[in-house]
Amino acid sequence: MELETYMHDLGRRARAASRWLAKADAATKNRALNLTADAIEHAGARLIEANARDVAAARLAKLDAAAIDRLTLTEKTVAAMADGLRQIASLPDPVGAISELKERPTGIKVGRMRVPLGVIAIIYESRPNVTADAAGLCLKSGNACILRGGSESIHSNQAIAVCVHEGLRGAGLPEDAVQVVNTTDRAAVGILLHMNDSVDILVPRGGKSLIERVMNESRIPMIKHLDGICHVYIDDAADEAKAIRIADNAKTQRLGTCNTMETLLVARPVAATILPKLASVYKSKGIELRGDDAARKIVPDMKAATEEDWRTEYLDAILAVRVVDGLDQAIEHIATYGSQHTDAIVTENTAHAQRFLREVDSSSVMVNASTRFADGYEYGLGAEIGISTDKLHARGPVGLEGLTSLKWVVFGDGQIRT
Amino acid sequence: MELETYMHDLGRRARAASRWLAKADAATKNRALNLTADAIEHAGARLIEANARDVAAARLAKLDAAAIDRLTLTEKTVAAMADGLRQIASLPDPVGAISELKERPTGIKVGRMRVPLGVIAIIYESRPNVTADAAGLCLKSGNACILRGGSESIHSNQAIAVCVHEGLRGAGLPEDAVQVVNTTDRAAVGILLHMNDSVDILVPRGGKSLIERVMNESRIPMIKHLDGICHVYIDDAADEAKAIRIADNAKTQRLGTCNTMETLLVARPVAATILPKLASVYKSKGIELRGDDAARKIVPDMKAATEEDWRTEYLDAILAVRVVDGLDQAIEHIATYGSQHTDAIVTENTAHAQRFLREVDSSSVMVNASTRFADGYEYGLGAEIGISTDKLHARGPVGLEGLTSLKWVVFGDGQIRT
Repeated sequence: MELETYMHDLGRRARAASRWLAKADAATKNRALNLTADAIEHAGARLIEANARDVAAARLAKLDAAAIDRLTLTEKTVAAMADGLRQIASLPDPVGAISELKERPTGIKVGRMRVPLGVIAIIYESRPNVTADAAGLCLKSGNACILRGGSESIHSNQAIAVCVHEGLRGAGLPEDAVQVVNTTDRAAVGILLHMNDSVDILVPRGGKSLIERVMNESRIPMIKHLDGICHVYIDDAADEAKAIRIADNAKTQRLGTCNTMETLLVARPVAATILPKLASVYKSKGIELRGDDAARKIVPDMKAATEEDWRTEYLDAILAVRVVDGLDQAIEHIATYGSQHTDAIVTENTAHAQRFLREVDSSSVMVNASTRFADGYEYGLGAEIGISTDKLHARGPVGLEGLTSLKWVVFGDGQIRT
Repeated sequence: MELETYMHDLGRRARAASRWLAKADAATKNRALNLTADAIEHAGARLIEANARDVAAARLAKLDAAAIDRLTLTEKTVAAMADGLRQIASLPDPVGAISELKERPTGIKVGRMRVPLGVIAIIYESRPNVTADAAGLCLKSGNACILRGGSESIHSNQAIAVCVHEGLRGAGLPEDAVQVVNTTDRAAVGILLHMNDSVDILVPRGGKSLIERVMNESRIPMIKHLDGICHVYIDDAADEAKAIRIADNAKTQRLGTCNTMETLLVARPVAATILPKLASVYKSKGIELRGDDAARKIVPDMKAATEEDWRTEYLDAILAVRVVDGLDQAIEHIATYGSQHTDAIVTENTAHAQRFLREVDSSSVMVNASTRFADGYEYGLGAEIGISTDKLHARGPVGLEGLTSLKWVVFGDGQIRT
C-alpha cells in the first residue's frame, strides 16, 4: 500500500511537471541539459563510487560478465553521458512549431502544432547511461518522465538522478520533470503499468520477456520493439562485391543487436557463385550456417535449417540461409517470417529495388546498404529512445519527433459553422 | 467454434488482400472507388429495399425515432454515399511518396515512405452509410478492412458490400479487401477484438459503452474517441460580438456532436456584461444553464452546477457555465475537467491566444472560432474516419493520412557500417 501511494504520487507529480515542461522554451530546456552535463562531469568520482556498489552486488549475485560489463561506469562512459546530453541540447527543439497552415473556404486557418506527449514512463534494464539519455530526450521534447531502471543499477541511477535534478533546478524547471523510481521492489513495475491516468506512453527497453510482460499487463499506449528478425536478400541482379560486403557486415559487425541480419536470402541464379564465397567469409568469422536443401547442395557443410530457424532471432553467431526463386519469393518469405524491423535488398535492378521498398512492410527497408544502419544516430536523429516495430505513430528508430505529436490549431476571426 | 473459424478466416483473407492493396497504384484504387459509386447508384432501389427490412425490424424492436432516422436510407442518402466515394477518389493518394530524403555522412540516403497500416477493423453502430465511407477511406489509403456494423443494419450493410465488391472486382482488386461481417452474433465482436495477428488497427465508432468495451477487451492499437467535453473560454480581452456568436454556435448549432461545447468559461471582468446577453440567447433556444455561484449571481435563474457538471458530456440542451479569474484558471479548468478533444478561446490579445494554443493539451485548439469546426471536412481532409482523442499517432480528425504510417527507406551503393 505504501508502494502504491509512492508510485501514484510519482505519477501525480509527473503530470503536474509535464505542464510546466510543455511550455518551457528551448533555451530553458537546453540550459537544464547543459547544466546536467556539467553536474555529471563534476560528480564523476561520486557516480563511479555509487556504481561500484551496484557492480559489487552484481558480482555477488553472479551476474554474467556481459551484464556486469553493461552495468559498469568508467570515466569514459561518464564523459560519454555528459557529451550525449550536450548533443541533445544542440538538436533543434521539436516543440511548438506550426506547420501546414492553410486557409479554408470558411475563412478559418487550420494548421498543426508539434506538442509533447505528456508523461513518458521508461522501463529499462542494466545500462545506467540510459538514465541520462532518456531523461535528456524526454526533457528536450518537453515531456516529463518516470524512469524505472533495473534493480541491479539502482545506486548508479539514483546518483545520475541527483545530477539531473541539479540541472533542472539550475534552469528553473521542476525537479519532478525527471523522477527515478527509488525502490527495487518489483511490484513497482506492476503498479506503473496500470497508471493510465498519469502515464501517456510506456517505453519498455530490454529483453523480450520484459517487453512481453509490459504488453500483456498494460493498456497504456507504448513505443516498443519486440523482435529483430532482419533479412538481406541478394537479388539475381545483385553486384557480387556489394552483396558479399553487405551480407558480411549485416551479420558480423555486431552479433547481438536488433538490426543484425538473422536470415540471408539468395536468388537461385546467383546462389551457386555467391554462396561459396560468403560461406568462407562466415567460416573465417566463426558464424554457423543453417541452410535449406538448395543452399546445402551448394555449401555441403551447412547444417539443415528447420522451420523454426526462419522464425528465430539468434542474436548470436548463427545465420539461417535460404535459396529463393527470386524477388517474389524473397518478399513472401519476409512477410511470413520477418518481424517488420529492417530488411535489405542487394540489387542493381531499379524495378526490383522499388518493388522491395514498397512491398516489404518493415520499419526500415534498404537498398544496397547494411541492415546495421537502422539506428537513430545513423539516420541523423541525433539520438534515439528505441526502435519501434509497431505501425502506429513512430516506426523504426524513434528520436525527439517520436516523443511528440501533432495537434490541430485553428485561427479564426469570429467564424461559426453554418 | 464455427464463428471462431469464420472470423479468423476473415482475418486471414484480409491480411492477404492487404498486401495486394498496399501495392495497388492510385489509378486502380480510384477505379474501384468510382465503380463502387456507380454500383451504389445503380443498386439504389435494391439498397432501399434491403434497408427497409432493417427499418421494419428496428420498429418491431421499438428503437427510438432518432435511431430509426439514423438507420434509414433514402434516395438522397444513397446518392450522398456515391458522391462521398467519388470525392475520396478525387483526393491525392497518400501512399508511396518518399519525403525528407537526406544524404548522411556515411553516403547512405535516408528518407521516409508513407505506407498503409495493413488491416483495419471498424466496429460501428447504426448508420449504414459508414459502410461505404469506411470502405472508401481504407481502400484509398491502401488498407484492407473488416467492417462490423450494428446488427440492426445488417441487411443494408450486406447490400452495400455487394456494391463495393462489384467495384473491387471491376478494378481487378481482391474482394477480400473489404469484408463486412455477415452475422449479427455479438460474439463476433469479442473474437475480432482478439485477432491481434490479423488486425493492425481497431477503429471503434459509436457510443461510450462500445468504446469502453473495446478499450477493456482488446490490446490491438486503436484510433478512438472517448469523450468530447469541449470548452469555449471568453477571455477578458474578447470581442463581445465574436464571443456571443461563437458561444452560441458552439453550443446550439448541433447538440449531439462530439465537438459541441459542454462548458462555457467566462473571464470575471467581462462576465457581468456578456453572460446576461448569452443567457437570453440560450433561453430563446431552450438551452438549460447550470452555473457556478459567480455565474448565478449575474444570471439568477441558472441552476447550480455541481462538480459532476464539469465532467459531463451532455450531448443535450444543457450547458455548464463557470466564471474564472482569467486565462490561467481557464487553462487549469480545461486541464482538470476537459477530455482533450476541442477547446477554443475568444480573445483579441495575441499573447493570451498564443498561451492558450500552446498550453491547452487538446487535439484541436482554436482562437476566435467555433468548436464545431473540429471536423475532417472543415479541416480540408476530404473525409474522416473519426476524431481521435488519443495522443499517439493521429490526434483530432483522422483522414487518409491517419490511416497510414511512415517507414524508413535507405538507399545505398554498397555501404556498410564500421
